[in-house]
Parts: sequence; C-alpha cells; structure tokens
Amino acid sequence: MNKRELTKKVAERSGHTQATSALIINTFISCILESLEAGEKVTIQDFGTLAVKQQKTRERFNLITKKVEKYSSYDYIKFITSKSLKNKQKARSLEAKK
Amino acid sequence: MNKRELTKKVAERSGHTQATSALIINTFISCILESLEAGEKVTIQDFGTLAVKQQKTRERFNLITKKVEKYSSYDYIKFITSKSLKNKQKARSLEAKK
Repeated sequence: MNKRELTKKVAERSGHTQATSALIINTFISCILESLEAGEKVTIQDFGTLAVKQQKTRERFNLITKKVEKYSSYDYIKFITSKSLKNKQKARSLEAKK
Repeated sequence: MNKRELTKKVAERSGHTQATSALIINTFISCILESLEAGEKVTIQDFGTLAVKQQKTRERFNLITKKVEKYSSYDYIKFITSKSLKNKQKARSLEAKK
C-alpha cells in the first residue's frame, strides 16, 4: 500500500476530501522530517518513535585493496516501535499459530 | 515532539482546524496499522516503508537454569528508511562536520 492508496482510504473514512487528506498527510510527514532534521525525536503514542541516531566511526578491512579503511560517523533515522504495538503484534502472531 | 504538538503544527500550517487535522492524522495511523495487521507493507515515498517481518525460532542457553530454551518465532514491525531520505540524512550529517 502506498501513500496515494492510503490517502484515498483516509479520505473515505474521515469524510473529508482527498485534497484535504493529502494536504494534511503531507504536512504531517514534512513536520516529522523537520523535527528529525532539527535533531528532535518524534513520538506517536501507541505507534512508535522516530529518532536520529549516530553510526559511529568504523574501521573495516577491504579485501580487495588489502587496506584498513576508515568510515566516518554519520546520522541515520531509526524507528522504535512502541511497546504496546510491539506486544500486540507479537501476541497476534503467537495467537495465530495456535 | 509528540502527536499533539505535531497536530497543532500541522493545523497551523495547513490552515485546517486542529479537529480536522487530528481526525485525518489518527485515521492515517489506523489505516497504516490495519494494513500491517493484514500483513501488507506500507510505503510512503521519500520517507520509508513499514513492514511486518518475522523473527525466527531461536534457541538460547539460559545461564541461570543451565538449560537450552526455545523461543518461538513471532512477528515484528520494521521501518526501512527510504534510500533518498537515508542519503539526505547521511549527507547532512557529513556536511555539518566539515
């Protein structure tokens, strides 16, 4: 499912137009991205947290050049599923197997 | 930043009321969760993909009971940052260090 399909579904269910839904969803995503850019984490209750984490400097042996190469540290975005959602998902999958 | 603060910001920026923004954001999140529950992955362009992955059955040696314990497999939710966003974030952090 992609954003367009989601927007359509959200519009149908909320009773608003697709244009309104698309505008709000896009603004929502850009607000999240802005917070992350500013280094702020974003928490959505019962869903999860998006945060910027740092990959530390690493050294790796390159098998082709036979040299140790240094990789500088960089930031990446990490999503941590909320505990409630994680447990729900886990319980559901364990239940399904019974 | 949490959902309430985000909703407020989205409402201000989009020109819609907070009630409308909240309704659409909540519907958006529940639609995502429903798709995930149905085992469908959700892709949001230039942002990332949410998918249900399976943690396989594992065996672990319990140091206290001195026994090998079996952990049954279960499902979890994984967020994969889109390539464009990942590269953007990486480039920004490397740029900032210069």
